[in-house]
Amino acid sequence: MAADRPSGRNADKMRDVSLEPGFAKYAEGSCLARFGDTHVLCTASIEDRVPPFLRNSGSGWVTAEYGMLPRSTHTRTDREAARGKQSGRTQEIQRLIGRSLRAVTDLKAMGERQIKVDCDVLQADGGTRTASITGSFVALHLAFQKLVQLGTLPSVPLIDHVAAVSCGIYKGTPVLDLDYAEDSSAEADANFVLTGRAGIVEIQATAEEDPFGDEPFFEMLKLARAGIAELVDLQKTAIGG
Amino acid sequence: MAADRPSGRNADKMRDVSLEPGFAKYAEGSCLARFGDTHVLCTASIEDRVPPFLRNSGSGWVTAEYGMLPRSTHTRTDREAARGKQSGRTQEIQRLIGRSLRAVTDLKAMGERQIKVDCDVLQADGGTRTASITGSFVALHLAFQKLVQLGTLPSVPLIDHVAAVSCGIYKGTPVLDLDYAEDSSAEADANFVLTGRAGIVEIQATAEEDPFGDEPFFEMLKLARAGIAELVDLQKTAIGG
Amino acid sequence: MAADRPSGRNADKMRDVSLEPGFAKYAEGSCLARFGDTHVLCTASIEDRVPPFLRNSGSGWVTAEYGMLPRSTHTRTDREAARGKQSGRTQEIQRLIGRSLRAVTDLKAMGERQIKVDCDVLQADGGTRTASITGSFVALHLAFQKLVQLGTLPSVPLIDHVAAVSCGIYKGTPVLDLDYAEDSSAEADANFVLTGRAGIVEIQATAEEDPFGDEPFFEMLKLARAGIAELVDLQKTAIGG
Amino acid sequence: MAADRPSGRNADKMRDVSLEPGFAKYAEGSCLARFGDTHVLCTASIEDRVPPFLRNSGSGWVTAEYGMLPRSTHTRTDREAARGKQSGRTQEIQRLIGRSLRAVTDLKAMGERQIKVDCDVLQADGGTRTASITGSFVALHLAFQKLVQLGTLPSVPLIDHVAAVSCGIYKGTPVLDLDYAEDSSAEADANFVLTGRAGIVEIQATAEEDPFGDEPFFEMLKLARAGIAELVDLQKTAIGG
Amino acid sequence: MAADRPSGRNADKMRDVSLEPGFAKYAEGSCLARFGDTHVLCTASIEDRVPPFLRNSGSGWVTAEYGMLPRSTHTRTDREAARGKQSGRTQEIQRLIGRSLRAVTDLKAMGERQIKVDCDVLQADGGTRTASITGSFVALHLAFQKLVQLGTLPSVPLIDHVAAVSCGIYKGTPVLDLDYAEDSSAEADANFVLTGRAGIVEIQATAEEDPFGDEPFFEMLKLARAGIAELVDLQKTAIGG
Amino acid sequence: MAADRPSGRNADKMRDVSLEPGFAKYAEGSCLARFGDTHVLCTASIEDRVPPFLRNSGSGWVTAEYGMLPRSTHTRTDREAARGKQSGRTQEIQRLIGRSLRAVTDLKAMGERQIKVDCDVLQADGGTRTASITGSFVALHLAFQKLVQLGTLPSVPLIDHVAAVSCGIYKGTPVLDLDYAEDSSAEADANFVLTGRAGIVEIQATAEEDPFGDEPFFEMLKLARAGIAELVDLQKTAIGG
Repeated sequence: MAADRPSGRNADKMRDVSLEPGFAKYAEGSCLARFGDTHVLCTASIEDRVPPFLRNSGSGWVTAEYGMLPRSTHTRTDREAARGKQSGRTQEIQRLIGRSLRAVTDLKAMGERQIKVDCDVLQADGGTRTASITGSFVALHLAFQKLVQLGTLPSVPLIDHVAAVSCGIYKGTPVLDLDYAEDSSAEADANFVLTGRAGIVEIQATAEEDPFGDEPFFEMLKLARAGIAELVDLQKTAIGG
Repeated sequence: MAADRPSGRNADKMRDVSLEPGFAKYAEGSCLARFGDTHVLCTASIEDRVPPFLRNSGSGWVTAEYGMLPRSTHTRTDREAARGKQSGRTQEIQRLIGRSLRAVTDLKAMGERQIKVDCDVLQADGGTRTASITGSFVALHLAFQKLVQLGTLPSVPLIDHVAAVSCGIYKGTPVLDLDYAEDSSAEADANFVLTGRAGIVEIQATAEEDPFGDEPFFEMLKLARAGIAELVDLQKTAIGG
Repeated sequence: MAADRPSGRNADKMRDVSLEPGFAKYAEGSCLARFGDTHVLCTASIEDRVPPFLRNSGSGWVTAEYGMLPRSTHTRTDREAARGKQSGRTQEIQRLIGRSLRAVTDLKAMGERQIKVDCDVLQADGGTRTASITGSFVALHLAFQKLVQLGTLPSVPLIDHVAAVSCGIYKGTPVLDLDYAEDSSAEADANFVLTGRAGIVEIQATAEEDPFGDEPFFEMLKLARAGIAELVDLQKTAIGG
Repeated sequence: MAADRPSGRNADKMRDVSLEPGFAKYAEGSCLARFGDTHVLCTASIEDRVPPFLRNSGSGWVTAEYGMLPRSTHTRTDREAARGKQSGRTQEIQRLIGRSLRAVTDLKAMGERQIKVDCDVLQADGGTRTASITGSFVALHLAFQKLVQLGTLPSVPLIDHVAAVSCGIYKGTPVLDLDYAEDSSAEADANFVLTGRAGIVEIQATAEEDPFGDEPFFEMLKLARAGIAELVDLQKTAIGG
Repeated sequence: MAADRPSGRNADKMRDVSLEPGFAKYAEGSCLARFGDTHVLCTASIEDRVPPFLRNSGSGWVTAEYGMLPRSTHTRTDREAARGKQSGRTQEIQRLIGRSLRAVTDLKAMGERQIKVDCDVLQADGGTRTASITGSFVALHLAFQKLVQLGTLPSVPLIDHVAAVSCGIYKGTPVLDLDYAEDSSAEADANFVLTGRAGIVEIQATAEEDPFGDEPFFEMLKLARAGIAELVDLQKTAIGG
Repeated sequence: MAADRPSGRNADKMRDVSLEPGFAKYAEGSCLARFGDTHVLCTASIEDRVPPFLRNSGSGWVTAEYGMLPRSTHTRTDREAARGKQSGRTQEIQRLIGRSLRAVTDLKAMGERQIKVDCDVLQADGGTRTASITGSFVALHLAFQKLVQLGTLPSVPLIDHVAAVSCGIYKGTPVLDLDYAEDSSAEADANFVLTGRAGIVEIQATAEEDPFGDEPFFEMLKLARAGIAELVDLQKTAIGG
C-alpha cells in the first residue's frame, strides 16, 4: 500500500500520535494531543450553570470552543480576539467538536452542569479539528473522572469513545491522516468522527477540485476505521483504562 | 418502500419541488426554489471586482450569502442584522453553498469577475440549505447565460450540474428529503451535494442521537442519488436546457 | 393634472397597489404590500414578553424591524447581517414604522404582550417605508384578530387605520407616490403618515436640492390625503372589514 | 397669546438663545449654542479628503456627527463609545444635521474637500437637534470664512442661512421651542428646519399620542417661522455679518 | 531652575490651573478642571446599583469613564462611538482614574451604591489624564457631600485627597506638568498620582526614547510632590474646605 | 531577608525561571518563558509591511499582542475572541510589551519591516506581563538573528537587553516576583521594566489598598534591579550569547 506522500508514509499510515493527559495544571481534565507537528491543547472546565434552554431540565451540556495561536501556523494568522470576531471556519469547527462529544455523552446522567472544552492549537500542521476531537474526549473523560472521585457522579457518563481522523485523495490515492503539505493539494478531504464501536457520528467529505466517486469514498471510510481504532487504543491508555 | 412519515410520503419520495427562474426583477440570475413549504429566493449578482487574493490572476470567484427572514420560521427568529452578527450556522451554510457552486464552475473560464449568490429563506420547513444549493445553481446559470448573451463570455463556464438533498434516519428508516417535522426528531441527518454525473461534491452526515452504522448510511446515499437525478431534471427545465 | 412623469402617471395617480393578506404561512398576521414594483413582506409576531420598561405595567408594545434583501435593489446592496450592523437609514425607518403603528394602537387594551412587525423588502422601486407602514397595519390587524378569535382579547385594540404615502416635487410639480426613477431626481420628498380619519401621525418633508415654499408643501399634503384614502380602502378589504 | 407652560413663557416665546462663536480653540469654526439650559458645542473641521463617491468629482461634502456627554442629561445616559455603537436616535439626528447644512451649501463651489461638523451636547434640556443645526451653521460659516481668509476660496459657498426650532402641542396649544419638561408631555412634537429666506428644508412632525389635525400643524409652522427669523438674526451677529 | 521650555515656564512651574466646581447642572458632583489649555469636564453620578461582584456585600464602588470630544485635539480625532469601540488608550486611562479614586475612598463606608465619574475632554493640550484625576476628586467629593446633606451618609467617605500631575525629561531637564508641545518631544514621561499626605497611589514612568537613570526619576518625583501640594490646595478651595 | 511568603521564598528570591528558545516550530523567533507556574509562549513574526504611518520612512516597527488561553487560569476565563473584543487589561498589557521592546530596538537600523510579537499565556500564576516582556526579548532577538543569518541585516538592531519583573508589598514587606497567591493580597504591586545597563524603561506602581511611601518604593526598585540582572543573564544564555 505504498503512496507517493510528501512524508514518505504509506497510504494507511497515521502520523505519530500522542495523547498526554493532565498537561494543564488547573483544568479539571486536559490533554495535549499531538498528531505529528499538529499540537492541540484540550482542556475541560466544569461549570455549575447550564445554558438557559436547559435550566431546571435535570440535563447537562457539553460545548466546545476552538482557537489557534496566531503563530501556530506557517505564516502568522490574525488573532481573532483582535479582529473582534471568530471566523466562520472557527465556529464551524467548534460546533463540530461539541456535537461529536455530545454524541457519546449521557447528558441526563451528567446532571445539570456544563462542561466547556477548549481546544487551542499551539502548532498546526493539518488535521487540527480531528486532533481536537480526539484529545477532547480524553480531557472530558478526565473531568468526569474527577466528578466521580469527588462522589458527585456515580460513574463516568460516557457511553462510548469518540475519535476523529481525516482522510484525503492525494494524487489519486486515498490516504489516511493528511498533514498540511498533503491537505493543501489534495483532491478531496474527508473528516470522519467515529465511536469506539465504529458507529458513525459525523462524516464531512468535500471535493476540493473535481467531484469524486463512490469507490474512493468507501476506501477513505475504510482507512478511517483503521485509524480510529488506533486512536481509541491511545485514548484508553491516556484515561488509565 | 412505505414509511411512517408525518407527511405520509414514501421513504424515497421527495416533496413537491419547483424551481421558478427569473423570480427577482433586478438580479442577473434568480430562482425561487420551493421544496414543499420551504421557499428560498436565490439571486446571482455579477460584480466586476474579485476578492484581493485573485486580483490579476485572470481567475473569477463565486461566493454565497445566506439569510432567513425573521418570521420564515414557526416562531420568530432574531434578525441577524439587529443582533450584529451572523450565527455560526449561517456562516457554515453559506460556506457550503459557495463551495458547492465553485465545484462545478470553471473559475478560469469565467474571467476575472465575481458572482455573489444570495439565498434568502422566505419560508422554512426543513432543508433550507439543500434548497439553497439547488436553486442557486439555476440562478448562477442564468447569470452566466446573460454574460453569454452580452457577448462577454463565449459559453457558460459550468462543467456540470450541482444539486443537493437531505436524507435522514427517521424511526429507524432511511428517508429522502426531510421536512421540519422529521428533521427535528430524526436520528440522523445527512446532506448530499452531488453533480449531474453523480460525482460527490460534499457529504455531511451527522448522528443526532445515537451513532449509526454503514448500512443506513449507504441506503441514504442511494436515496440521495435518486433525488438528485430528479432535481437535475428540474434544473434543466428551469435553465431552458 | 398632467405631469411629465417617467411612468406616465398623472400627478395625483398612485401606482397599482395590492395588499395581500396571509402571505406568510407561520406569522400570526402577514401582508405582502405591493406598490408597483416595490414589494414588502410584512409579518406580525406575537410575543408574551414586553420590553423591560413595561414589565408589570399592564401595557403592551408594538415594535418594528426593517430589512432589504441584498438584491432587492437595482444593484446589489451589502447584507447588513454580514456588515455587522444596521445602517442609520434602516434604524430610522424601523423607528418610524413602530411609532406609526403605536399611534393607532391602544397599548393598554392589548394587554402585556408585544407584537413585533417585520418589514422585509423583497423588491425595491421607491417608497419602501410607506409600503411598509401600509402593509404592517394589515399584518398587525390580522394578528390582533387572531387574538380575538382565540378569546384572548375582546376586540381588536386599534383605534383607527394608519397608512402612508410619499409625495415629491418632480420637475416643479407636486406628485403622488414616487417610484425610484422619480425619487432619485425629485427636488423634494415628503412622507405622510395619516390615519383613517385624516389625522396627522407623522410628516417628514425634505428638500433634496433647493428649499421649497409653503404652496407646494400644502399641495403635497392634499395629494397625500387623497392617496391615503385609497390605501385605507384597500386595507379594509384586506382585513375583511 | 398666553399659555400654561412650565417655564411661564408665552406660546410664541423662545428660550434665551445665545450663539457664541469661536468657543473651541483648535477647530476651524466653532460655536457654543445655548437654548436655555440646552448647550451644544458645534465644531467644524476641514479635511482634504472627500468620501469615496465624490473622489475626482470636483465637489465637496458636509457631514455631521452628534453625541451627548453621559451626564448632559437629568439622569446619566450610557456612553455610546462604551456600548460600542451609536443609537438609532443618534444616527437619525446626525443625518438630519448633515442634510440641513448641505441644503444651503454650494458643494461644487466649496471644492473637493470635506467639512465634518461635530455637535456635542454638554447639557440637554430639550431641543438638542435644533440647537445643533442652528449652531452648526455658525461653525460651518466660520470654517468657510477661514478658507476665504487663506485665499483658498473666493467666497463663502453658503447660499442662505439655515436654522431650526421645535414646536409642539402642549395642553392643546401650539407652542414654540419646547424645553424638556414640555417635550416629555407634549401631545405632538415638530421640528422645522428653515432657511433665511423662509424656504422649507425639513419638517418632521410626530404625534406623540393622538393624531392631530391641519389647524394646529399650520399654527406650529407659523410659530416656527417667527422663531427661525430670530435665530437667523443671532446667526448674523455671530458670524460678524 | 530655568529651563528652555516652549511655554517659557520654569522647570518647576505648573500651568495655570483652575478647578471650577458645580459646572454641570444635573450631575450630583461636577468640576471643570483646567490645566492651561487642557479642559476636562468631570461629573460624578450616583447610582443605586453596584456591579454584580459587590451585590449584597454592603460595599460600594467608584468607577470612571473617559472620552475626548472629536475636535478637542489639534486635528480632529475619530469619534469612538462612531468607530464602535474605545481605544486601548481610553480604556487604560479610565482604569487609572477609577483606581486612583478608589484608593482614597472608603468603599465600605459609602454603602452599597456606585458613583460613576465621567471625564470628558473638551480641549486637549497634554496632561488630560492627570487633569481628569485631579478634577474627578472634586466631583466625587461634591457628590458625597450631597449624600451627606441628604442625610444618607454621616460623613464624606474619603480618607484623603488624591491628585495627579505629569512630569517629563525635556531636553535633558526634568520638568513639571508637560503641555502638548513638550509631551510630544519629551525623552521621558511620568504620571504621578499622590495623596494629600504624599502617599504614592500610582506611578507610571515611561522612557519615550532612551532609558533613563535613577537621578532624573527621583528629580521628577520631587517636582511632582510640589505640584501635587498646589493641586490639593486648589481642591480644598473647590470643595469648600 | 526572610519573609512570610506563601511560597516560602525569601523576599529577594525569584521563582525558578527558564527561557526556552525555539519552542515554536514556525516562528522566526520564539521563547517559552516560565516563571514558576506562569508559562508564556512568545513568538516573533517578521512581516514586510509596516503600519501606514511609517510607509516610506525607512524605519521599522515592533508591536505586540497578548492573550490568555481560557483555562490558563485557576477558573476558566471567557475567550476574548468569543466575546468579540479584547479587554482593557489585555490592551494595556500588549501596549506595554510593545513599548518595552521598542525602547531597546534601533527602529531605523531594522529597516522598513515589522516584527509582531505574540505573547500567549498557557498557564497563569501571576506576573504574566513581566514574563511576556522577558521572553519576548529573546524571541525578538532570535528573529533578528535569523535576518542577520540571511544577510538581510548586518547586525542585530538591539541596543540593549530589556527584561521585566514585578515587586510588591506583601504583609508590609517589599518582595520580589509575586506569584498569584501574593499578587491577589499584596498591598502594592509594581512592575519594573529595565534594561541590561539598568536604565529605566517603564515603572508602573500601584497601591492596591493604602497608598505607600517612598521608602518601600525605593526598596522595591532595588529588588527589581537585582532580579532583572538575573533575568538578563538567562536571556544571554537563551540567545546564545
